[in-house]
Amino acid sequence: MNSTATQDRVLNDAQVAELAQQLRVDAVRAAAAAGSGHPTSSMSAAELIAVLLTRHLRYDFDEPGEPANDHLIFSKGHASPLLYAAYVAVGAVTEEELLTTYRKFGSRLEGHPTPKLPWVDVATGSLGQGLPIGVGVALTGKRLDRLPYRTWVLCGDSELAEGSVWEAMEMAGAEGLDHLTAILDINRLGQRGPTRHAWDLDAYARRIRAFGWHTVEIDGHDVAAVDQAMAEAEATSGRPTAIIARTRKGRGVAEVEDKEGFHGKPLPHPDEAVSELGGIRHLRIHVRPPEPAGRPRLGGDPAAPLPRYTLGDQVATRDAFGAALAVLGTRREDVVVLDGEVGDSTRAQMFAKEHRDRYIECYIAEQQLIATAVGVGVRGRLPFASTFAAFLTRAHDFLRMAAISRSDLKVVGSHSGVSIGEDGPSQMALEDLAMMRALHGSTVLYPCDANQTAKLIAGMAGREGIGYLRTTRGETPVIYGPDEEFPVGGCKVLRSSPDDQVTLIGAGVTLHEALAAADQLIADGTRARVIDLYSVKPVDTQTLRAAAGTTGRFVTVEDHHPEGGLADAVLESFGNGHPMPLLTRLAVHTMPGSATPAQQMHAAGINADAIAAAARKLVNTKLPALGG
Amino acid sequence: MNSTATQDRVLNDAQVAELAQQLRVDAVRAAAAAGSGHPTSSMSAAELIAVLLTRHLRYDFDEPGEPANDHLIFSKGHASPLLYAAYVAVGAVTEEELLTTYRKFGSRLEGHPTPKLPWVDVATGSLGQGLPIGVGVALTGKRLDRLPYRTWVLCGDSELAEGSVWEAMEMAGAEGLDHLTAILDINRLGQRGPTRHAWDLDAYARRIRAFGWHTVEIDGHDVAAVDQAMAEAEATSGRPTAIIARTRKGRGVAEVEDKEGFHGKPLPHPDEAVSELGGIRHLRIHVRPPEPAGRPRLGGDPAAPLPRYTLGDQVATRDAFGAALAVLGTRREDVVVLDGEVGDSTRAQMFAKEHRDRYIECYIAEQQLIATAVGVGVRGRLPFASTFAAFLTRAHDFLRMAAISRSDLKVVGSHSGVSIGEDGPSQMALEDLAMMRALHGSTVLYPCDANQTAKLIAGMAGREGIGYLRTTRGETPVIYGPDEEFPVGGCKVLRSSPDDQVTLIGAGVTLHEALAAADQLIADGTRARVIDLYSVKPVDTQTLRAAAGTTGRFVTVEDHHPEGGLADAVLESFGNGHPMPLLTRLAVHTMPGSATPAQQMHAAGINADAIAAAARKLVNTKLPALGG
Repeated sequence: MNSTATQDRVLNDAQVAELAQQLRVDAVRAAAAAGSGHPTSSMSAAELIAVLLTRHLRYDFDEPGEPANDHLIFSKGHASPLLYAAYVAVGAVTEEELLTTYRKFGSRLEGHPTPKLPWVDVATGSLGQGLPIGVGVALTGKRLDRLPYRTWVLCGDSELAEGSVWEAMEMAGAEGLDHLTAILDINRLGQRGPTRHAWDLDAYARRIRAFGWHTVEIDGHDVAAVDQAMAEAEATSGRPTAIIARTRKGRGVAEVEDKEGFHGKPLPHPDEAVSELGGIRHLRIHVRPPEPAGRPRLGGDPAAPLPRYTLGDQVATRDAFGAALAVLGTRREDVVVLDGEVGDSTRAQMFAKEHRDRYIECYIAEQQLIATAVGVGVRGRLPFASTFAAFLTRAHDFLRMAAISRSDLKVVGSHSGVSIGEDGPSQMALEDLAMMRALHGSTVLYPCDANQTAKLIAGMAGREGIGYLRTTRGETPVIYGPDEEFPVGGCKVLRSSPDDQVTLIGAGVTLHEALAAADQLIADGTRARVIDLYSVKPVDTQTLRAAAGTTGRFVTVEDHHPEGGLADAVLESFGNGHPMPLLTRLAVHTMPGSATPAQQMHAAGINADAIAAAARKLVNTKLPALGG
Repeated sequence: MNSTATQDRVLNDAQVAELAQQLRVDAVRAAAAAGSGHPTSSMSAAELIAVLLTRHLRYDFDEPGEPANDHLIFSKGHASPLLYAAYVAVGAVTEEELLTTYRKFGSRLEGHPTPKLPWVDVATGSLGQGLPIGVGVALTGKRLDRLPYRTWVLCGDSELAEGSVWEAMEMAGAEGLDHLTAILDINRLGQRGPTRHAWDLDAYARRIRAFGWHTVEIDGHDVAAVDQAMAEAEATSGRPTAIIARTRKGRGVAEVEDKEGFHGKPLPHPDEAVSELGGIRHLRIHVRPPEPAGRPRLGGDPAAPLPRYTLGDQVATRDAFGAALAVLGTRREDVVVLDGEVGDSTRAQMFAKEHRDRYIECYIAEQQLIATAVGVGVRGRLPFASTFAAFLTRAHDFLRMAAISRSDLKVVGSHSGVSIGEDGPSQMALEDLAMMRALHGSTVLYPCDANQTAKLIAGMAGREGIGYLRTTRGETPVIYGPDEEFPVGGCKVLRSSPDDQVTLIGAGVTLHEALAAADQLIADGTRARVIDLYSVKPVDTQTLRAAAGTTGRFVTVEDHHPEGGLADAVLESFGNGHPMPLLTRLAVHTMPGSATPAQQMHAAGINADAIAAAARKLVNTKLPALGG
């Protein structure tokens, strides 16, 4: 093999081993040039990746969007030097880019991989997420795309302690994802010392087999053994395969090999290490592309009408969500719905009834729920994931990473706030708005009636990034006509006059309380503007500023803890020279117990009476002069 | 057995079966009286609980604080009717209280159990949390209290899909917690239909055994079999035991037994159901109390001096945290530290070096990390749990439930914000302040130097509820003397004059940037007040209002997304008649990549230059008049 030529034939074991050494050398050089990074965690998996690239992966690096391409996910994202060294070996990234930009400002070669790189599906670096997302990718291939691509996920051993990995093992085993292969790089050493199971490969194999997987235990530095294991994975049907590879961290450099204290830092003597590894090589390899497959033609009937509700009817927004989602599924065949064994409560099952083939039951495993959705999104479909809003907190880290992945992910949380009533605080989402607003680039919507819900679901589907819609358990009156529009970033001014003295701002269940409060206030001659802040992020800055200009006084009311929700969203509109109104913040300040919805709203001080009282008090407050 | 007498001898199987029927009857009656609740999920586990109460549990209901008491945790918290019926049977709760207050406003008998009841250790109702917390309780017994109490956890089958359960299985197996017994109520039906494994008991047993547990599979309605299984659990040493019980949801009432559609609602015909179950009974049983054990005498040297740092030295707050924690461990022998295999990075290992026996390694399993800490807290010790702040999002739901449990839990998150540098966004906490602030009753602290960190760690230890302290990866200069005090709820005004034109507010790493910005501003003759908002929750309302009164203009600067962090905390101080200052909110508005810390701070617009520029602009903004 000419060391600079492109290989166009099958490499023998010695040549693959040479490639592995090159990957090590380049990982060492990259970390040395950057002054940080994880070369030792890369070196343990060099043969695993070298064999995969040269003999098993089917991928067209010139056409990363090719639907028949395999997927390669580095769940151990800190091994980015290995991934980028592989990109150099296949000619996708130049050696110069690797050595001059890795981990530098503005580089696409970040410390942990992100989809800034066209060959990276999702951001990794929070451990235990790659395999769960890989399950979503593989499941899409099997159930929806019906394409024979394979999903290969490289995992570290430390991350196998994450429960999310076992949610993934369970789902993959139960779904029989035989085109999914987990490659476990068991290098014995975690960040701060030995892992719980060290090199007890069988400890891992026993657990994984119990979840319905096929397992193969090998020496991860033996090229022939790795090759055979991957062939075995490809030949195994009905079950996913885990290749459990015993490896040595820092393999090939005696100073660091299998030694503690060298995690996450450049090698102490990189030049000597490169020499010990046989020096710099310039092997270039050709990864076999797949047979091209057409993108599935996903059409739909864009004219399918949204449900229409009659003014005054009592309809829960969760019901309106389910009905709208079913129509969205008819309009767009790319819509896929996922639920966490609560589809009867969230009403996602209304979609399932119409589009059974595009409904994925994730059982009570919210991390896997979001991960599967992200995987579905990797395949170009539009995922809607739903569960009780309170339980979305279970998947917070997955949502955080999905934002870094720039995932197009739609999330719907039901049973928000104290208004759910008797079930008590464990079931009440009182921090979901804070969580979802703080995600980078998110959209947060909170409808108060059925027609609005239908329109917002459709609107959210057309918007990029993470979208969140919060629904309510109980029935609320329909107050908008079915032809009203609700643009994301807008709001509705429901009561208004030029001499308004105070602005009441609610959304969802509290909007109705705000309207009732305004009626109470009229009785004592107090004029209140009422704003329906259905778009919590982005907020309608212009309308809020106008209301502040006119009334100078805001009462915000939300079925949420006081931090991070509606009031904070309102205040985002001000500052930078825009004067803030006086604000009274009504929210759930206490820990609720069990009670009827009306008692809960009363106890929390977020019902009409409380709003009217707060507004009266605020109206009687003199607007003070600011200092300075 | 006299049906109203207190039993003081061993009941025979038929009598225990009678008790089980009574538990069912009372569960049915409670849900009927409340108009909501989960009777069917209670009925499946009636024999399991009846046998436990009469033959295995050792608990003094008159002395719930007795350290030798067993622990009984209902991980399936929705089966609260069963738990409360059991409390009636042992005489701890009256039938009247159950039938008139269950799920009603103000009741301690909430829809899901909470520690408002003296016999309940922790709130449950978010599935998959009871077993992880039970692991913490059992581990404390084995490693720290060295008491022979047993921890019994009743789990549902649906919740076994949660990854957190498998984190718990792993830890319990690895730690050999033979005084922990999981009682799995495999009733086949989840909320919306069959579970993934239905009645395939062996599917569960295989998985659980693979994690190092002993398993027993039984008919959960066979009193003798349940008894034998519990005896087997008690006799098993070196391993925890899972009793895997095949049961029928709604057992005993033909209309609902093993039928879909009856989850989470009262029985359709409760009177007939009670008749079918043999009518109302008034059995009262006596649970055998344990041999009383003394509370472990936990002393310490309260005079052990905190570390002292010299002004101007460069010290990372994470280092100061580790050093202070080690001293706190000397001062208080009740302090227990838990970490998620990153103790070298968080610096929790500095505690481990001094107090190895009170350091618990939870590996990379953040849900189990927090759950173990909550369990340690149940046993009256003071847990400090630490990991990268970004990865605390993994445990958000556990933190949420810990707030409902009123847990005394201290949490420390390292590597916050973009200032960590090259590792990139997956490792950066940019939403932790939003998450921790929105927890009910939480305290949120964010020190900027080493002496402040030491004092805040000590201060947080003395405060009830969930406390969170955010540390920084890089070094920052020591700006406070070692004798300075930092009360929780306070702040420090570091630059001040009566003619200040603007207030700069930072905390942690941004405080130093704010000080540098103030120096820049002085050069153009702009006087800036500088506030160190080390106590993010609660905030120092008085000082902030005074600053607003004087300067009218705030620039807040935080190494966090703009939502839910420092700026929102500042704005909490206003409203209700207190005029808000003009505010410019500097925060991380963009998605960072890899870069040096200084480049990151610059790119995010949160360094000294950005602060000075924002302050100049704001000072030149006229204070406008408010309308209304």
